[in-house]
Amino acid sequence: MIINGQKFHTIWSDGNNQETVKIIDQQKLPFEFSIKTLKTFSDSYTAIKDMTVRGAPLIGVTAAYGIYLALCNYNSEIPLQKFIHLKCDEMKTARPTAVNLAFAVDEMKNTLKNIEEWDLAKQLAFKKAEELKQLEIDYCNSIGNFGVQLIEELSKKKKGETVNILTHCNAGWLACIDWGTATAPIYKAHEKGINIHVWVDETRPRNQGSKLTAFELSQMGVDHTVITDNTGGHLMQHGMVDLVVVGSDRTTRTGDVCNKIGTYLKALAAFDNNVPFYVALPSSSFDFSITDGIKEIPIEKREANEVKFMEGKGGKAQVVPDGSKIANYGFDVTPARLVTGIITEKGICNANEEGISTLFKK
Amino acid sequence: MIINGQKFHTIWSDGNNQETVKIIDQQKLPFEFSIKTLKTFSDSYTAIKDMTVRGAPLIGVTAAYGIYLALCNYNSEIPLQKFIHLKCDEMKTARPTAVNLAFAVDEMKNTLKNIEEWDLAKQLAFKKAEELKQLEIDYCNSIGNFGVQLIEELSKKKKGETVNILTHCNAGWLACIDWGTATAPIYKAHEKGINIHVWVDETRPRNQGSKLTAFELSQMGVDHTVITDNTGGHLMQHGMVDLVVVGSDRTTRTGDVCNKIGTYLKALAAFDNNVPFYVALPSSSFDFSITDGIKEIPIEKREANEVKFMEGKGGKAQVVPDGSKIANYGFDVTPARLVTGIITEKGICNANEEGISTLFKK
Repeated sequence: MIINGQKFHTIWSDGNNQETVKIIDQQKLPFEFSIKTLKTFSDSYTAIKDMTVRGAPLIGVTAAYGIYLALCNYNSEIPLQKFIHLKCDEMKTARPTAVNLAFAVDEMKNTLKNIEEWDLAKQLAFKKAEELKQLEIDYCNSIGNFGVQLIEELSKKKKGETVNILTHCNAGWLACIDWGTATAPIYKAHEKGINIHVWVDETRPRNQGSKLTAFELSQMGVDHTVITDNTGGHLMQHGMVDLVVVGSDRTTRTGDVCNKIGTYLKALAAFDNNVPFYVALPSSSFDFSITDGIKEIPIEKREANEVKFMEGKGGKAQVVPDGSKIANYGFDVTPARLVTGIITEKGICNANEEGISTLFKK
Repeated sequence: MIINGQKFHTIWSDGNNQETVKIIDQQKLPFEFSIKTLKTFSDSYTAIKDMTVRGAPLIGVTAAYGIYLALCNYNSEIPLQKFIHLKCDEMKTARPTAVNLAFAVDEMKNTLKNIEEWDLAKQLAFKKAEELKQLEIDYCNSIGNFGVQLIEELSKKKKGETVNILTHCNAGWLACIDWGTATAPIYKAHEKGINIHVWVDETRPRNQGSKLTAFELSQMGVDHTVITDNTGGHLMQHGMVDLVVVGSDRTTRTGDVCNKIGTYLKALAAFDNNVPFYVALPSSSFDFSITDGIKEIPIEKREANEVKFMEGKGGKAQVVPDGSKIANYGFDVTPARLVTGIITEKGICNANEEGISTLFKK
């Protein structure tokens, strides 16, 4: 997508021989655009852990490149296969909730299975990371093509009046490689000239909504308004939201959707006001091994300081007094019963085992 | 209640002859404790408008003292009764949503009706403002005594294990004169030695939860944890909330509850998880003239900068890019069907016309 008029992906390599990978430093957006170079496994691991890159699909691809960078720096102290296994296992611990991380790492492990020659392993790892990157681009593009149909229908129903779409957190192209998941239908609608307006939840504590989604939409020229996370219910009660679209970090085969903390509250409000609530995700975000999202998906607990301090342009403000405890849960789970439908690269389906299995036979 | 070991009200006069009123500057809490002196009508009006004082009951009492201060500075340019009417009408425009403002101003107007002598009017105004202040203290004390019974029951049911209570915004003593509305049962339970823990929603954009409620609870030694506004639903799904108690800025005679934006989302989550959701309010917060909260209660729209910047200790951080629009709604309405019960100074009732009318015959 476009930043300052120039086309970007969120991650790219300068070619196999360079042994480096470039990323957009998302900690600094929207107030500073800066590119960071990853040279080692540890660079990649840290970029995921400290959220220099974030968003389920991008985490996966960064992890894949991280395995490639590990191989670039392999020093034969331990056997190659053991090294690959250790690094893959370690990478999976960078963040616990998004299933794409495990998906991408397992794909890498599989690709490198039985390879004993270092140079070949390195080449295969590079190729596979590039493939996984392209896969996520294709997935998002396809999600956009399916999802835009929902917006077109709403636009027709409203006789061309503005379609108001609410989104939470950033499931935009910055969370992916290109297009985004939840935002792909929005960008496709914008390209088609459909009148749309996006309500952007700021998404405390890290404000990926006001910092990343608002930035993305601004760069692409999409009309939008930032609101606090408290606001969506009020807007829905007053007919000011036609559609909710969010992303997902992990979705069960029964359609329970794990996404950024607060998503569940918006799903409840959408349900209460008959507003369609869709989740956009590539197949790499499904966890087909589980059925009960609330019981089975591990929810990341993050540092108290993310809540205690607000960082932005001009400084850092402490907003919680020192004497108070803080709890910082990263995600919540929206039960399938509140989800109108799931938009995937293979089409739109109902949020239940039957619906999902019609698209994905696993 | 207690600040740094000393007993305080949120507003007090130094006596009729002083012609001044003191308030705690709530814009500076929790990082600075400072007392401000109001000398004129305009000082009071501004303190309400810019939220140096806030909270429905405190707004009402500050408005009452404001009418008294107007009379202190009366210069006989216009007839006394006309002056009183003008000032009363003007005061009502300071903030639109909390009904206590209109209630207190109407009480003042009524008290001063037909009074033509300036000195008498001043004396009566002072006396009435003091009465309204005492009334709110008594109301909150009584709300505490009724509400604590709910906590005692939960504590018994849990065999003395910690009762977890979630609250939104600040309906504490800082929003009132003493005790608070939603917090009165909490403080009474704490006094009785019941094991309680409070989940404090930070309450964007102005963070009255993390800045005021957390401060209050710290000062009173009540165990609590600050969370983002996105978190409550997740906690309720996991059995970590036994009771929700919030305040109200205006409640219809049918039990629709207007309160700080985001309250509706917590009510939905409580309903979805069978967590009792109570609203604590004095009779001065009822608007008996209306029946449909969503359609009839005016919702204040506040400045974009409250969302765009986060102020706190150490500075001010911009968290929304310049190119993005911002909408800042101050309140939302929770339909009566989501409210388990209303805790008033006269007892606890169902959130519907029948329940409310058993306590308040109007």
